[in-house]
Amino acid sequence: MTERVVVVGGDAAGMSAASQAKRMKGDALEVIALEQGSHVSYSACGIPYWIGGTVGSVGALVARTPEEHRANGIDLRMRSEATALDLDRRVVEVRDHEEGRTYEEGFDQLVLATGARPRRPDVPGVDAAGIFGVQTLDDGERVLDALTGEPRRAVVVGGGYIGIEMAEAMVNRGLEVTVATRSAEPMATLDPDMGRLVHSAMERMGIDVRTGVALESFETGEDGAVRAVRTSAGELPADLVVLGTGVGPETTLAAAAGLPLGRWGGLVTDLQMRVFDAEGVWAAGDCVESIDRVSGNRVHVALGTHANKQGRVLGTNLGGGYATFPGVVGTAMSKVCDLEIARTGLLEADCDAVGYQRLTVTVESTTRAGYFPGAAEITVKLIVERRTGRLLGGQIVGKEDAAKRIDTLAVALWNGMTVEEISALDLGYAPPFSPVWDPVLIAARKAADLVRDG
Amino acid sequence: MTERVVVVGGDAAGMSAASQAKRMKGDALEVIALEQGSHVSYSACGIPYWIGGTVGSVGALVARTPEEHRANGIDLRMRSEATALDLDRRVVEVRDHEEGRTYEEGFDQLVLATGARPRRPDVPGVDAAGIFGVQTLDDGERVLDALTGEPRRAVVVGGGYIGIEMAEAMVNRGLEVTVATRSAEPMATLDPDMGRLVHSAMERMGIDVRTGVALESFETGEDGAVRAVRTSAGELPADLVVLGTGVGPETTLAAAAGLPLGRWGGLVTDLQMRVFDAEGVWAAGDCVESIDRVSGNRVHVALGTHANKQGRVLGTNLGGGYATFPGVVGTAMSKVCDLEIARTGLLEADCDAVGYQRLTVTVESTTRAGYFPGAAEITVKLIVERRTGRLLGGQIVGKEDAAKRIDTLAVALWNGMTVEEISALDLGYAPPFSPVWDPVLIAARKAADLVRDG
Repeated sequence: MTERVVVVGGDAAGMSAASQAKRMKGDALEVIALEQGSHVSYSACGIPYWIGGTVGSVGALVARTPEEHRANGIDLRMRSEATALDLDRRVVEVRDHEEGRTYEEGFDQLVLATGARPRRPDVPGVDAAGIFGVQTLDDGERVLDALTGEPRRAVVVGGGYIGIEMAEAMVNRGLEVTVATRSAEPMATLDPDMGRLVHSAMERMGIDVRTGVALESFETGEDGAVRAVRTSAGELPADLVVLGTGVGPETTLAAAAGLPLGRWGGLVTDLQMRVFDAEGVWAAGDCVESIDRVSGNRVHVALGTHANKQGRVLGTNLGGGYATFPGVVGTAMSKVCDLEIARTGLLEADCDAVGYQRLTVTVESTTRAGYFPGAAEITVKLIVERRTGRLLGGQIVGKEDAAKRIDTLAVALWNGMTVEEISALDLGYAPPFSPVWDPVLIAARKAADLVRDG
Repeated sequence: MTERVVVVGGDAAGMSAASQAKRMKGDALEVIALEQGSHVSYSACGIPYWIGGTVGSVGALVARTPEEHRANGIDLRMRSEATALDLDRRVVEVRDHEEGRTYEEGFDQLVLATGARPRRPDVPGVDAAGIFGVQTLDDGERVLDALTGEPRRAVVVGGGYIGIEMAEAMVNRGLEVTVATRSAEPMATLDPDMGRLVHSAMERMGIDVRTGVALESFETGEDGAVRAVRTSAGELPADLVVLGTGVGPETTLAAAAGLPLGRWGGLVTDLQMRVFDAEGVWAAGDCVESIDRVSGNRVHVALGTHANKQGRVLGTNLGGGYATFPGVVGTAMSKVCDLEIARTGLLEADCDAVGYQRLTVTVESTTRAGYFPGAAEITVKLIVERRTGRLLGGQIVGKEDAAKRIDTLAVALWNGMTVEEISALDLGYAPPFSPVWDPVLIAARKAADLVRDG
């Protein structure tokens, strides 16, 4: 007997799940995928680079087209929005925006991959023309349209990943760029001392960085378009505004259907990506909360790499196989111009919040042997549990070849290693790639000394 | 009471040990360090880059000068060769090549850091002018001298790390370069299928690579200088020859004093770097054998990073502290022109030799998101234990930003992770740094599928 799956959401998690389940079960599984927008399976993380001109065309960001999914036997329906769920009757209500009609679709299994929703600041003028989010390819097209009007000044609201990446994009497009953030430093996903390094580097790149700033309103001109951002630190003139004010899980549909949500408003699943207490309902991607393996808490991390992994795990289980998503350790990375930024694990404030007593060490070194051309500065910060010396978090800021070293710390963290153990690791060494003591090892060694001394 | 330490060997291991012990014990420890050559504490790994002109001056390779060591209270004696040991009388016989005299020096503790000795091919003509090893800074100076004579054709004997690095150096100096190796492929520290990729890349760079070649003799001209290398595959004209035929532990002194040696001729120590069954004798660096954590066997790996770590561990213990060197997992890396090469763990042949049944997976991917400028090719090979799925080894060949990913595998290997576990790791992702599935994760995922299927 054929089983019918409805997948809500056609980006990384949803289509990975659909593809994997279909690959495993073939004709025994009917897969209907609903995507409200006009693109599927694209790299949202690539949008700032497309807008900035680093990536030439939107097509490059699309991993798989609707036609390719259909050729794989998935009944993919574009511009089709799931507007309601009835879990008792096992039906989803679908609004077909193309045809302008609404219908019901029945399912045996339901996959929720509804993604994340940008947080829009609740201030006057936020809906004015010239103010853009950068969540979807459609958003990206709107920003590119606006750039054809040759704006001169861009204000980026928010100093997180999207904020700094869009600041770089606007610099690349030749605009004067101001970044306004309410945090003490940009990149609040780093400790402030590391964020400070990002701040200084952005200023050296000519970006005007305003920190500790409260947003008050968006001022519009006579044409109704934004002309300035009013903040607690004064008015910032703007021909174009980018909102990088973070995202939360998009779970409106799930909540309305009575599914329980976690602390951050996301769906909560078991290790196989089954929604708890909801027979035949699965979820993956930016709409779920994940286990943070360092703190033991659930967290919400909207990141393409998790969405892809979770989707694949979900699809494997839905397809009759077995796989688990064992959680995250909070690894993330980005860059702004030539500055690379990476983090994993807990920040100092996170440690305090969950009750870890901590020691910290920060070291400066180089990415290659000091004498080797191209050796670039790198700062590594480690956060370590007192007494046990167990690594709790790591942060890296530096130039070329700095950031990917976060993986070493992420794997060490995943395995619960102490800094003493980390300092003995057999990492790759050759002068073009590392000093004889890799910066990560230097940091671990110093941290181990600190642990020993109490 | 002051204790007296004699350190034999003034490079990474010896001087790290001397410095660390002195730092910890101060005046309570008298440290005499004997160096037979005219440099200490230098990066031997950097020599090919200095010869190739990538690194401008020999001074750049020196981490610490004799004067700096002396300022730290170490009685460092240059051009002073330890010629004999008497462990009963606790004296070392020293030949002072500067003053032309021989004397005895007593010790309470002895540190052997005598390094590695290049293996010289036992064929006629090997001592001819124009044939160079590249083990020490003095060797490097001799090669640079020879280059002033504007040689046209270089033959590099051996296709390992030194071989390929010197091939690149000679290419950079404008020479026609032939690499002759007896192995089936260059880089015999990789499996032949991965070595094949190196071979092809070297040929694309204009290097003439001769594999499976037996060395017969070096032919000299009337001036006594080398003019060709005679091999089983014919004669290779040469104005300059570089020997990259590997190294073994330099333990002549230790052996003559009756210290027991391991399977590879190296000294064997406990975790604190004390030589077994030799009270008050320590050893570190290229003259010792280390525990290979994957096979459980002792191995000889001559590498600056181990020498530095072992020296520091030794010095810490000698200084009254506590540290251990828990072994290696066989991580190493290099490059030839724009090709990056890295390995960790066991090769296929190593697995067979120690009795691991294995599966292998090789994947091709890119170093960045496929659509991101600068995304470069990367090939990742994993070797995995049958049934358990435990990682046994990994090899990476690729272009810019490929090789340092070996660290992820090295840490996973260190922790005994299975490929199923590795495939779930939370590695850093952003389009300028990685595809959404890092190449290492793709390889682990495919390997996990293979393990599941038997």
